[in-house]
Amino acid sequence: MASQSQNACRSPELRHDPVTNRWVIFSPSRAKRPTDFKSKNPQNSNPNNNSSCPFCIGNEHECAPEIFRVPSDLNDPNWKLRVIENLYPALSRNLECPCEEKQDIGFPGQVIGGFGFHDVVIENPVHSVQLCDMEAREIGNIFVAYKKRIQQIISVESIKYVQVFKNHGASAGASMSHSHSQILALPIIPSSVSARLDGTKEYFEKTGKCSLCEVRAKELLIDESTHFISIVPFAATFPFETWIIPRVHSSHFHELDSEKMVDLGGLLKLMLRKISLQLNNPPFNFMIQTSPLQVKESESCYTHWFLQIVPQLSSVGGFEIGTGCYINPVFPEDAAQVMREVNLPVEG
Amino acid sequence: MASQSQNACRSPELRHDPVTNRWVIFSPSRAKRPTDFKSKNPQNSNPNNNSSCPFCIGNEHECAPEIFRVPSDLNDPNWKLRVIENLYPALSRNLECPCEEKQDIGFPGQVIGGFGFHDVVIENPVHSVQLCDMEAREIGNIFVAYKKRIQQIISVESIKYVQVFKNHGASAGASMSHSHSQILALPIIPSSVSARLDGTKEYFEKTGKCSLCEVRAKELLIDESTHFISIVPFAATFPFETWIIPRVHSSHFHELDSEKMVDLGGLLKLMLRKISLQLNNPPFNFMIQTSPLQVKESESCYTHWFLQIVPQLSSVGGFEIGTGCYINPVFPEDAAQVMREVNLPVEG
Repeated sequence: MASQSQNACRSPELRHDPVTNRWVIFSPSRAKRPTDFKSKNPQNSNPNNNSSCPFCIGNEHECAPEIFRVPSDLNDPNWKLRVIENLYPALSRNLECPCEEKQDIGFPGQVIGGFGFHDVVIENPVHSVQLCDMEAREIGNIFVAYKKRIQQIISVESIKYVQVFKNHGASAGASMSHSHSQILALPIIPSSVSARLDGTKEYFEKTGKCSLCEVRAKELLIDESTHFISIVPFAATFPFETWIIPRVHSSHFHELDSEKMVDLGGLLKLMLRKISLQLNNPPFNFMIQTSPLQVKESESCYTHWFLQIVPQLSSVGGFEIGTGCYINPVFPEDAAQVMREVNLPVEG
Repeated sequence: MASQSQNACRSPELRHDPVTNRWVIFSPSRAKRPTDFKSKNPQNSNPNNNSSCPFCIGNEHECAPEIFRVPSDLNDPNWKLRVIENLYPALSRNLECPCEEKQDIGFPGQVIGGFGFHDVVIENPVHSVQLCDMEAREIGNIFVAYKKRIQQIISVESIKYVQVFKNHGASAGASMSHSHSQILALPIIPSSVSARLDGTKEYFEKTGKCSLCEVRAKELLIDESTHFISIVPFAATFPFETWIIPRVHSSHFHELDSEKMVDLGGLLKLMLRKISLQLNNPPFNFMIQTSPLQVKESESCYTHWFLQIVPQLSSVGGFEIGTGCYINPVFPEDAAQVMREVNLPVEG
């Protein structure tokens, strides 16, 4: 009940986090109590099998070409996960002239060819198994697959940034209910990543410190594992947004070793179970917020990767589209307290 | 059918517009034909009256305090539009210490008090009347009300930017179906506006020109009026996104005179009718993209206001949240052609 009374006496605030480099409005008067936030659009569990799902084991022939599977033997039908090409890729791996800038387009602006890689990671052979049902070790294996694929892509010089992300639930952008995530390798550095580089650089120049190494505040903490902490960020863009941050400074997700990936898997599983129980199994997204592939020596001291989890609880309106500034009705300290106190049942 | 064949033989592209200062991926392989885009979530017309709607004429006592009405006589019950305080304001007009920066917050980041104004413009006294049902002159009067309110707010020194926006339809963020728009006056310059200043400045320094004055390309044009053009922008973030741009260079929306506001009302009405007919009455947002209130003399040559209309046709996923880079399945030239060719019925 502490949260309720805190919320009631709070005035709105604007907060700016060097990591996102954006202002967020915290506006408690629009809010329910922090504990009252629930998804109006809960995700039902998948049926046990779905014969028409191309991601299910046995339906591999319905998919776009495979890049690799785990275990790696292509003839082993009992795969645990597969990395395949996206059947509807946003970018094309077959363009002949990656990234040549087009001339004389007749408008103020730039155009480059849409060269890139858009892959899908089928996280489990079984249709009904969602990420939070899997063991830490199995989730760790998904991270190992991300890393392997990123390491393959690094050799392609024109790729500047690799975004790993997961959409869970139709309103979070998922077109398939079988548990999967995506890897999109881009020939540009996207604006959120540039903004993060600018914001964390500015903070470093002012303080000599990495902003994410500085995040240790108890009030924002949800949970901890051996190698990671999970927090609600100081200027969370969305209610109950959660970041999992490696304790040791590191620019790139793909620098992580396998043992730490299992540890990360355990903490991600814990966060997803808490979100599901507390917020009524909402649609969600997670994104691995890593650094551009070619980070300069001088940038490595303020680039620190993390995993961002966003439960989808509200729709976006004209104010957010117009300004890039979001209105969050839940103060991060209150969201962190709620998430700390979630009592999970013991897994059966 | 030209659009269809164009789309089929196109490769994906990445485009960067100095005005948004962001990359957008255009990916035709994911697309239906441009003419096949329809809202899956069409907005039903409002019932004729709604006794429980506080925005309806006669229910003024259920609203937050009025700021002004048109006609301006407070005792005239036959108002045409009202500007009122938002009952659930995102920012507070009553904070004592606007914008004092808080010290020693214990996290890397900044906090300022949430001082600001959050108003609602009730666009019509009648519940069933939507914006596109109104006459150009009536829509012009709504713009005049925006201008009047902005001019009142300018005198408050700590306000840096005023965002005028409209949410139409629940999935576009509207909590009330009675036609209304909102005015949010902010003590900061939000990130999209800063990015626009940076992008248009860079273009100006390279070319000596204002990027929006340069937008005249026939391929992107939808319609024209005496004082405005409507286009699909070169790097449209969303399918069928539309900008209405004043022909004559001007930094601020509130510099517009009443005659031009009626002209703008006519072109906005035309665009909304075309969007409604072509895209199956989708939820939509519009935003007046103006400049910070205090624009320096040196900035005025590259700051050019416009009105942005975004039909809501797709959901946002982890890729967009993570990168700020959007995937648009419809090339702007194709969207502009479709919108040019919409045959509107004569209004009865």
